[in-house]
Amino acid sequence: MKLIRYGEPNQEKIGVQLGDKYYDVEAFGGDYNEQFFANDGLARLEEFVKANEGNLVEIPSDSRIGSPIARPSKIVCIGLNYKDHAEETNAKIPAEPIIFMKSTTSLTGPYDNIIIPKGSTKTDWEVEFGIVISKKASYVSEQEALAYVAGYVLHNDVSEREYQLERGGTWDKGKGCDTFAPIGPFLATKDEIADINNVRLWLSVNGKMMQDGNTKNLIFNVPFIVSYISQFMTLLPGDIISTGTPAGVGLGFTPPVYLKPGDIIELGADGLGTSKQVVKAYGSN
Amino acid sequence: MKLIRYGEPNQEKIGVQLGDKYYDVEAFGGDYNEQFFANDGLARLEEFVKANEGNLVEIPSDSRIGSPIARPSKIVCIGLNYKDHAEETNAKIPAEPIIFMKSTTSLTGPYDNIIIPKGSTKTDWEVEFGIVISKKASYVSEQEALAYVAGYVLHNDVSEREYQLERGGTWDKGKGCDTFAPIGPFLATKDEIADINNVRLWLSVNGKMMQDGNTKNLIFNVPFIVSYISQFMTLLPGDIISTGTPAGVGLGFTPPVYLKPGDIIELGADGLGTSKQVVKAYGSN
Repeated sequence: MKLIRYGEPNQEKIGVQLGDKYYDVEAFGGDYNEQFFANDGLARLEEFVKANEGNLVEIPSDSRIGSPIARPSKIVCIGLNYKDHAEETNAKIPAEPIIFMKSTTSLTGPYDNIIIPKGSTKTDWEVEFGIVISKKASYVSEQEALAYVAGYVLHNDVSEREYQLERGGTWDKGKGCDTFAPIGPFLATKDEIADINNVRLWLSVNGKMMQDGNTKNLIFNVPFIVSYISQFMTLLPGDIISTGTPAGVGLGFTPPVYLKPGDIIELGADGLGTSKQVVKAYGSN
Repeated sequence: MKLIRYGEPNQEKIGVQLGDKYYDVEAFGGDYNEQFFANDGLARLEEFVKANEGNLVEIPSDSRIGSPIARPSKIVCIGLNYKDHAEETNAKIPAEPIIFMKSTTSLTGPYDNIIIPKGSTKTDWEVEFGIVISKKASYVSEQEALAYVAGYVLHNDVSEREYQLERGGTWDKGKGCDTFAPIGPFLATKDEIADINNVRLWLSVNGKMMQDGNTKNLIFNVPFIVSYISQFMTLLPGDIISTGTPAGVGLGFTPPVYLKPGDIIELGADGLGTSKQVVKAYGSN
């Protein structure tokens, strides 16, 4: 099943993708949030869609598409989780996962603009394979970890490198600016992805391929990551984990290449669809 | 005004403190959350309390007291914000604020137990002066910052030093464990604190005074911090900012002293009340 949300920011309605079309499921009720996942929403939604399949209404063709998940309790990210990316940024291969957090106010739709923060000169891209949690997870073992996963999403972990690396303190400072987490277009439930350890993911800027990786090169894979994070904090239904980015970010070039107003970012991952963002200067709208 | 919440975890009801007694205000409706602060809840609650003052009912005397704020979108913390604490941990005085984030699942009541995580040997205490945001704040100036503040809370920024400093990555790994953010007993609205730049705050372990500081020694003060964070992420109504801890944490001793099951932590700050937590091993209840 593929879950989508559409409509104006913070007023999104819920829907599903069937074939290549989007259908409204507002009649199902609620939102794709903590309560939805905690109360077996995925199974109930599947029944609802089956029961109403002929009668579902396509969403208006000019609808904005939002994040497929409502604002979660947290977005937890793994840093330097592809060997080639660690090397391009002159970082050591981590002995265990690096954890940082994105402010959930950074969440935005897959086709929304990315806003370069005021005065920023080092805004960068990062295509990532994202995990959505289905139930409360604390001290979960690697073996049982996938039972706590609802599905997967495409994520552009937009990052301001000066804020992240040159302004003191933790990476969080450069990861949580508004619009820095375009998620979607859809949440793919687990059954949609044949092999999570073999998902190609790519990102282009102005049509030029910048990143072209595969989750088979993850240093720490999905079950390990879910289990690992759950040793340090409790994951809640609807929480998002982003698993890290492969090589090809702007910081990795000599000299580095950063985003500027007008740039067009396109990204995609096998089974998770594609997204596209236009880069804007703060206040230029 | 002093706002409190009481009742079982995740089912708290709202109340106020008048004099030294707690009164129920469930009839006001809702919770002390983002919607409350965004919709001028503080002013409406004040009117409600005035209108009903003689008729308010005391809460049951055996009630558990919860965090005075419902789970916020984020808990943003400032690191090394007292010169004496930076020195005791052998850290440089930061040139600008260090930002890190606590998972909001760490939020707990002021008298709840602190649970030492599984296998942890370095759980530490940190008394802090906390800020609660009243309205959406993005690129707010230092001059206007206090207009975005609802009030203040007492916070024990419990920290696992091995997770924070020795396990790779950012501080977030050692800050967000369950029960690591006892907040309260109450939210004091701004008018309750005569001078936020002169608030004594202290913490004892088993009756022995460990921390005894004052916000006059903050390297970066409240308006500066609110303004600063709002340059990197949007603060939402109900969000909590913790401003850093003065000297006297366990990590600062030679050799370091950490919490063990049975320890009793008491802490307080001028105008923000006192809280008390008993330390338990994971799984021991």
